[in-house]
Amino acid sequence: MSVRVAILGASGYSGAELLRYLYLRKSITDDVEIAALTASSRVDSSVASVLPQFRHLLSSSGDVPKFCRWQDVDWGSIDIAFCALPHGTTQEVITELWDYPSLRIVDLSADFRLRSLAEYERWYGKAHGAPRLQDEATYGLSEHFRDSIGNSRLVANPGCYAAAVQLALLPLAGLIDCSSISIDAKSGVTGAGRSLRDEFLYCEVNEDLRAYALSGHRHVAEIEQGLELALAMRETAGEGGGGREMASEKSPLGSTSGSTLGSTSGSSSLSDLRVSFIPHLVPMDRGILTTSYLRLRAGESVSSCLSAYERAYDGSAFIEICRDGSVPSVKSLRGTNRCSLAIFADRRPGWIVVFSAIDNLGKGAAGMAMQNMNLMLGLAEDYGFADYALVP
Amino acid sequence: MSVRVAILGASGYSGAELLRYLYLRKSITDDVEIAALTASSRVDSSVASVLPQFRHLLSSSGDVPKFCRWQDVDWGSIDIAFCALPHGTTQEVITELWDYPSLRIVDLSADFRLRSLAEYERWYGKAHGAPRLQDEATYGLSEHFRDSIGNSRLVANPGCYAAAVQLALLPLAGLIDCSSISIDAKSGVTGAGRSLRDEFLYCEVNEDLRAYALSGHRHVAEIEQGLELALAMRETAGEGGGGREMASEKSPLGSTSGSTLGSTSGSSSLSDLRVSFIPHLVPMDRGILTTSYLRLRAGESVSSCLSAYERAYDGSAFIEICRDGSVPSVKSLRGTNRCSLAIFADRRPGWIVVFSAIDNLGKGAAGMAMQNMNLMLGLAEDYGFADYALVP
Amino acid sequence: MSVRVAILGASGYSGAELLRYLYLRKSITDDVEIAALTASSRVDSSVASVLPQFRHLLSSSGDVPKFCRWQDVDWGSIDIAFCALPHGTTQEVITELWDYPSLRIVDLSADFRLRSLAEYERWYGKAHGAPRLQDEATYGLSEHFRDSIGNSRLVANPGCYAAAVQLALLPLAGLIDCSSISIDAKSGVTGAGRSLRDEFLYCEVNEDLRAYALSGHRHVAEIEQGLELALAMRETAGEGGGGREMASEKSPLGSTSGSTLGSTSGSSSLSDLRVSFIPHLVPMDRGILTTSYLRLRAGESVSSCLSAYERAYDGSAFIEICRDGSVPSVKSLRGTNRCSLAIFADRRPGWIVVFSAIDNLGKGAAGMAMQNMNLMLGLAEDYGFADYALVP
Amino acid sequence: MSVRVAILGASGYSGAELLRYLYLRKSITDDVEIAALTASSRVDSSVASVLPQFRHLLSSSGDVPKFCRWQDVDWGSIDIAFCALPHGTTQEVITELWDYPSLRIVDLSADFRLRSLAEYERWYGKAHGAPRLQDEATYGLSEHFRDSIGNSRLVANPGCYAAAVQLALLPLAGLIDCSSISIDAKSGVTGAGRSLRDEFLYCEVNEDLRAYALSGHRHVAEIEQGLELALAMRETAGEGGGGREMASEKSPLGSTSGSTLGSTSGSSSLSDLRVSFIPHLVPMDRGILTTSYLRLRAGESVSSCLSAYERAYDGSAFIEICRDGSVPSVKSLRGTNRCSLAIFADRRPGWIVVFSAIDNLGKGAAGMAMQNMNLMLGLAEDYGFADYALVP
Repeated sequence: MSVRVAILGASGYSGAELLRYLYLRKSITDDVEIAALTASSRVDSSVASVLPQFRHLLSSSGDVPKFCRWQDVDWGSIDIAFCALPHGTTQEVITELWDYPSLRIVDLSADFRLRSLAEYERWYGKAHGAPRLQDEATYGLSEHFRDSIGNSRLVANPGCYAAAVQLALLPLAGLIDCSSISIDAKSGVTGAGRSLRDEFLYCEVNEDLRAYALSGHRHVAEIEQGLELALAMRETAGEGGGGREMASEKSPLGSTSGSTLGSTSGSSSLSDLRVSFIPHLVPMDRGILTTSYLRLRAGESVSSCLSAYERAYDGSAFIEICRDGSVPSVKSLRGTNRCSLAIFADRRPGWIVVFSAIDNLGKGAAGMAMQNMNLMLGLAEDYGFADYALVP
Repeated sequence: MSVRVAILGASGYSGAELLRYLYLRKSITDDVEIAALTASSRVDSSVASVLPQFRHLLSSSGDVPKFCRWQDVDWGSIDIAFCALPHGTTQEVITELWDYPSLRIVDLSADFRLRSLAEYERWYGKAHGAPRLQDEATYGLSEHFRDSIGNSRLVANPGCYAAAVQLALLPLAGLIDCSSISIDAKSGVTGAGRSLRDEFLYCEVNEDLRAYALSGHRHVAEIEQGLELALAMRETAGEGGGGREMASEKSPLGSTSGSTLGSTSGSSSLSDLRVSFIPHLVPMDRGILTTSYLRLRAGESVSSCLSAYERAYDGSAFIEICRDGSVPSVKSLRGTNRCSLAIFADRRPGWIVVFSAIDNLGKGAAGMAMQNMNLMLGLAEDYGFADYALVP
Repeated sequence: MSVRVAILGASGYSGAELLRYLYLRKSITDDVEIAALTASSRVDSSVASVLPQFRHLLSSSGDVPKFCRWQDVDWGSIDIAFCALPHGTTQEVITELWDYPSLRIVDLSADFRLRSLAEYERWYGKAHGAPRLQDEATYGLSEHFRDSIGNSRLVANPGCYAAAVQLALLPLAGLIDCSSISIDAKSGVTGAGRSLRDEFLYCEVNEDLRAYALSGHRHVAEIEQGLELALAMRETAGEGGGGREMASEKSPLGSTSGSTLGSTSGSSSLSDLRVSFIPHLVPMDRGILTTSYLRLRAGESVSSCLSAYERAYDGSAFIEICRDGSVPSVKSLRGTNRCSLAIFADRRPGWIVVFSAIDNLGKGAAGMAMQNMNLMLGLAEDYGFADYALVP
Repeated sequence: MSVRVAILGASGYSGAELLRYLYLRKSITDDVEIAALTASSRVDSSVASVLPQFRHLLSSSGDVPKFCRWQDVDWGSIDIAFCALPHGTTQEVITELWDYPSLRIVDLSADFRLRSLAEYERWYGKAHGAPRLQDEATYGLSEHFRDSIGNSRLVANPGCYAAAVQLALLPLAGLIDCSSISIDAKSGVTGAGRSLRDEFLYCEVNEDLRAYALSGHRHVAEIEQGLELALAMRETAGEGGGGREMASEKSPLGSTSGSTLGSTSGSSSLSDLRVSFIPHLVPMDRGILTTSYLRLRAGESVSSCLSAYERAYDGSAFIEICRDGSVPSVKSLRGTNRCSLAIFADRRPGWIVVFSAIDNLGKGAAGMAMQNMNLMLGLAEDYGFADYALVP
């Protein structure tokens, strides 16, 4: 029987990419039905005019729903809602949807990513509008929180940068000096969404390159939260323990874990963890590459870090670890849910350089969202994917 | 049971795109086995180093064959060979392969596209090396020669420009003044293949735009051949007749049709048919857009031309006709086997402007090749496709 | 003594490019003073924030004026105003400025390009707001109307496409069949100005290619006007006569020429002249390439057309005629006021293909504007230029 | 009287950019004569076919010399030679030219950048072929070694990355912890020159992003050499002393300084200075952006670092320090010899992030070379420049 799916905010880049993943899935496993597409500002537009890449589906099969308002969806009949709405309004919408007990939600906005309401307020400039829901939410970094995600009704898909960085750094948290983390991140322009702003006009971006968000990019809050958690888990488990899933019985970033983490003694310094994170805008459509400069703890090495990757990602379908001296590049991941990782020795003894690459619309948004849907449905995490990059 | 497939010249852009189509097909229908990949100059390279987008397949499933020389393939066990070799050498290779009676071949080179050996010699600068095979070959413009392709052992996939132009013009051949055809074509850089030439370096192409092949692009020979045939068929069938398949009993560009066409009386002027065709190089990876300026015959109109399209392409899975005033664009077809067509009235009364857009590596190469494979196997032409464009 | 110059609308791409040309001129001839920059919507912004490329001038020399409202300029002290305002508002502003008798204006908007008020109304959707000024205006296609421009107080700089096309076609008007002109034009994205519209976002333009303005681009009106005039002049002068300047005693597109042209008898068909003109958007910042498909009149040839170019452009500093088989390309003109032209025989006997390339912000806007300023000041047309392209 | 200039290796990107700078200079100061252009592999090609951007000069003025072999130049008549030859061959050529005592040389290759012959051998894989000349060479980082450059016959222009990084870091050497320097560098594709390699084909670079040279980029040797020198000078001068020119009486990287530096006692640790430097290839033609993650020494701050910049670059025409919160971007420097610098506080207390941006063909090659020519001739360093960026 088909899973009935709705996409809220289907006209943006992430929403449209989700639609592509879901149609592809239909071709493969035929286990989903795209039941509703909401796009408040486009209710009167045809899908073909906004998303011409799906034009052929309209005439042939008739199974592309029209854009509608989210209020007009029959939510009682929906199994999974992907929420690709702007930050802020998401809270309100999901609060409304919460009354439908059989509905599970993967939220691609930032509204439920930060466990701490105080942090949310600090980064987003206003009090959280749905604190009770925040308590229900699980952070959807699939490879690290599979069990929690599987048990959750509300999964907060990571920010694109946060996904790329945490996949590279979380397994290394105990092996490096977390006070000396410098992360240089570069992103294609879809990372900014379909925002109609002067700075994203073709002629403003093309042939240019610059850093931005110097006063602090919001994704750094997710990164620091993830690192703190990883360190705390490690302490709890004892050095060297832990295993692949960060969450053991109690889901660490999910409903019951807040207090657990809060009580981890001996880690008073964790809340001061600060990393440097500088994002740059690169003239290309898709792709994030992160380059992290890390100081090893005494006794650690490239080799021990690679072993940590292998432990963390053993059996992970979407993680590839470059072992042959090659470096991650974004084009070879274009259109996929994969993440490439590599570790190199730095010129400075005792330091390493770590790379991660993803497609920001794939592993950084729609791909990870569908992976989370699989986890929530108890399926293999790569079920319904056909993960072949478009090159060139 | 699986169809066993080989790709000759798998390290080029068309070969790699074929590999992507075939892996995608495996995900969907699981009816193919990629049995051999040849790449003479890369025999010692790993697939991962040349085609890093398939790196993850190597470790996980082990079912990516190594690059080998074509002489080292066990051809007796192969069902379909896709030949993406350079022009010229193809003839020699296919001559060798012809002894394997169960092997069917889709050739993506130019070696078997021109029915006339004299024309071949004129355009390619040397006598054809396999005239007997040329006699066996069918021109693989899928939508127009389905029956012939289905019955053929050797299908000559059209040139990328020739595909885009003929899909737009063949249905209109009888409705327009064929002595006044001006075709302005624009292509992304993959159209040139992976040629290591100064003019295709990034900094030579980027931010530039220019026409090329002013002394005559070889694809124009295919276009004129196709138009001549379309006119001859129309005469034979009587004006207004014809139906969807150009070939009736005798396949027109296949083995037995040469003499048939040669004898079409009353069409002495056909061999003088000349069209203007100017290709331009555009700074983008993929995509062909053609803009044709055409004078209508008396009594014809945009409307009658659209009707001709509908007759020609009724039931064609990969052809979309823009009817809502929208214009074909290449990005919304990226990674697909689709072709978008549109017709607009010109400012000059009695003239029209016709657009066609394709992905030159899809409908212009690998996609059409797999479509032809389907026809040769008696399958639906869109079997095993998942035709969702990567946008943005 | 310095010429005092003002730029109205200095924050757009054309305005900023004018600023670059003028600063470069200061470095060379030191005969201009940039007295005022207006940018109504940016009055409160610093030039450095809007045009960071001029940031260094602010600190060092202090001679970059602040953005102001045009109403706040002391127009009595200005010699030349470059008007790079949006269409429509230009008329109102110039009407106000007309009271300053020593002020001469080069208008880069479309407001004064069309001689016929009826045509203006048809293309721009409203009655012309300054018909008396239209009567004063001269069409600023420098190479063809030097004398008229030199005598004019108000010069209407051509549209970017109109400049590229007319430079290619006007000299050939008498040699070709003007009823069979197909012009395929391609432009970089700056051609659209700094418009904040969804379709000009990076991810919408990049890797895409499409035609636009299918219902008729406004520049075609200039092109048809120019061709009609060129044909009329030729008739008046007698076939083969004419010489380099279209205007003889009476400036053809200037104040007194309207009635002259209107009375040219025997050319009743001229007003029906229609050309096909299809513009395409190409993913690059700058550059226009036009490809025209033309049928020759009996007796004409590539050679006679090249001779017509040489007659028309003898002594023209900014026109280069490719004679060595090379084709015009846009990158080799980037940042210049030059135009490259080439003529090739078509495959169809009796037809030719003509190319022209310009930088749309140079010859298509700011460069031609400064060239016109030179003509208005009685200087050599290339005075103060340093016309070296930025390549790559 | 004119300075007679030759460019060796004029067909590459740096050579052609030099030609553009020199022609622009001719327009402004008319004090140079381009006497010879060598391009061994292009002797039989016309300049117009290799560098079409200069095509118009050939016909009009006749003052573009033909490409010749360097052996065919009358070196006795040349005042300044810009040497843009490949690494390695440069040594041999300059050795030959050294016999012309009036000839001064700006070398854009890497052959004379490293003071230590052992370091040269380590990085370039063979013994230096002209050790005596190395002794004569001065490192041409204009803003830091003006006096030495002015007194030298052989100036080694810095590598493009080395220029961007050192302009950012040298003034801060005494204020930061030099054992914790992480430099993330990004470059456009011209940084690789006009190399005909598969990896620089359009479709390999476009829409991709990756790090390279993981085993160590040669420019890091220049960077470490520069930092060591800056630290040594600082020690010699006493903390806080020093002034703007690093070299005091004896030019530090020039002929007599080797032993001086070698003898600086107390700095035994300097030779172990290692920085992390990771270059990335970005899909754009021009531009380098560097992002450095630095730990401050106790007592230092963003403010004290900015003061160090102001001391170091007071009166430097080509350095702009962003003080208004804006960040350096490469496009606003395109075609110029300028460098933009900015310093921001890091999220981690006690750390800063420093940006520098240049045009790699300008400040990173041709622009700095002409600046050095000015210093060698005793002219103002910005003499003959017209430093207006091409935007967009």
